[in-house]
Amino acid sequence: MKDDRILLGHGSGGSLSHRLIREIFYPFFQNPILQKQDDSAVLGRLEGEVVFTTDSYVVEPIFFPGGDIGKLAVCGTVNDLAMLGARARFLSAGFILEEGLPVGHLKMILESMRQAAAEAQVLIVTGDTKVVPHGAADKIFINTAGIGVRRPGLALDGANARSGDAIIINGNIAEHGIAVMASREGLELNVSLCSDVAPLNMLVAELLDRIPDIHVMRDPTRGGLATTLNEIADQSQVGIRIYEKDLPLVAEVRGVCEILGLDPLYVANEGKFLIFCRQQQVEDILVVMHNHIYGKDARVIGRVTDQPRGKVVMETILGGQRMIDMLTGEQLPRIC
Amino acid sequence: MKDDRILLGHGSGGSLSHRLIREIFYPFFQNPILQKQDDSAVLGRLEGEVVFTTDSYVVEPIFFPGGDIGKLAVCGTVNDLAMLGARARFLSAGFILEEGLPVGHLKMILESMRQAAAEAQVLIVTGDTKVVPHGAADKIFINTAGIGVRRPGLALDGANARSGDAIIINGNIAEHGIAVMASREGLELNVSLCSDVAPLNMLVAELLDRIPDIHVMRDPTRGGLATTLNEIADQSQVGIRIYEKDLPLVAEVRGVCEILGLDPLYVANEGKFLIFCRQQQVEDILVVMHNHIYGKDARVIGRVTDQPRGKVVMETILGGQRMIDMLTGEQLPRIC
Repeated sequence: MKDDRILLGHGSGGSLSHRLIREIFYPFFQNPILQKQDDSAVLGRLEGEVVFTTDSYVVEPIFFPGGDIGKLAVCGTVNDLAMLGARARFLSAGFILEEGLPVGHLKMILESMRQAAAEAQVLIVTGDTKVVPHGAADKIFINTAGIGVRRPGLALDGANARSGDAIIINGNIAEHGIAVMASREGLELNVSLCSDVAPLNMLVAELLDRIPDIHVMRDPTRGGLATTLNEIADQSQVGIRIYEKDLPLVAEVRGVCEILGLDPLYVANEGKFLIFCRQQQVEDILVVMHNHIYGKDARVIGRVTDQPRGKVVMETILGGQRMIDMLTGEQLPRIC
Repeated sequence: MKDDRILLGHGSGGSLSHRLIREIFYPFFQNPILQKQDDSAVLGRLEGEVVFTTDSYVVEPIFFPGGDIGKLAVCGTVNDLAMLGARARFLSAGFILEEGLPVGHLKMILESMRQAAAEAQVLIVTGDTKVVPHGAADKIFINTAGIGVRRPGLALDGANARSGDAIIINGNIAEHGIAVMASREGLELNVSLCSDVAPLNMLVAELLDRIPDIHVMRDPTRGGLATTLNEIADQSQVGIRIYEKDLPLVAEVRGVCEILGLDPLYVANEGKFLIFCRQQQVEDILVVMHNHIYGKDARVIGRVTDQPRGKVVMETILGGQRMIDMLTGEQLPRIC
């Protein structure tokens, strides 16, 4: 490709579009299904229950410590499938590019997608690219949809939390949102503060092989831990109690939250998930978690109660109780 | 919803997002799968071969004669599945909204999506909404991904055109692109010139029930008829010959093309498709076509030849021959 920037013609559907696909996209996403070049990807028969999800990604900046919009677009969708116990098999990728985007940036993003898809063992089988004039979008937006399969009979469901359940998280909270915000604000950090963005499906598969009757799994992304806990309290009509002293939060993240005036409970994660399970399953789950790179800091952070239904309460370090509401308003725009 | 415009907070993942989903989206897309409110949609087991596709829609203006971005987003993806013989079953919908978008406009778009999905008998089962600050996107972009199923053993494939095949189109060309462009340019038209945007899956299903061994189907969207014919000539390594006198093109569209300096062969369609089939199947296909609202103007427009491989030639009305290349550059930005 002679030009080093994306042109409107790259979205025309004509010869420039074909060159973009052949010369830029295909080298990163080689697989026989994609390379058929038909309007749709023929996947053949799928065994098991099929699970389907989608997310659009508009994060700003598009490159941030620990990842970029491409890694996010693969991991986010893989994780949404994993939360319902499905192994991600196939992804679609829809790109909206702003005229003038450097092709070198696009290639870096595609390489991140390639790496994340390889780690998650998922194939990108169909795609689409649109180009809009300069100023009609901000650099690049990516949509991924994902198809996964799972074994029938799993109990996993946001409405399936039960009084007495333990609540486990696989590691430190608020790292993605803080890495993105610090990067956006140009904060000079003394420490290497990185997004936690990661594909969780392999860890989830190991967990479900060992403990297939987990009640709920969900990843606290936009809106953070507080919002996700509220969703589950509402769907399951239970109370949720968490312990501030047990919340895993590194000092640097806490410090940046204070500088930016953010509550880490509402800051997005992209490599974390919550498990609701029976108390007697906790030990088994933590053993699997602690042996996995994405679960090594896993711990119990709370439990499910009968009352107050639909509410989340935090026991504070000072011994008080604080009602934790769902995020209201927009704390962090374009965080994912 | 008190506010009549989309706010950044509607994309936060928090309580405003939940209200947007519950109060604006759900009333249009009611089905038990979507309403589970989990991260992903559980579709259960799917019988037959699974087909998967995606497209993002960035059309400008978002409302145009004959449709809007919502109708386009459903029909385009349904049609991409239909072109490989698959009946669309499930759609995802990912929305990127610009802060300040009137909620009334969003509702009109959702109503169009609801109607198109009902006509195509497809369920919207999972979705996502992001909001970006004013100026970071232009009003609304929609991505849809679609899952369809088809019976095993279909021959349909862009690489399956054979020398001697007839080429059929289901009606008049260039109407979508011209309707959008005329609307964008504020052209006052004496006639009601409308986009042809329509879901083709029911017509395709009827055709495949009757003639299951059609060689190729493809919808000439971005890049128009010329680009699609070139794609198939290339994929199948055959020559393609079309007859100018047989191209269905209404006088008004031809007139607007002349005003705008556009070649109708390169103008997008959103309710047209090409069929490549054996000559002896033409009559059966036209019978089915002519009995269907979206096929009533169907006719043969050309045939497949041995040579020149990978090339498209048009026999002109004046008796000459013109090489028809793939679209180069950007004729019509943001046409879909």
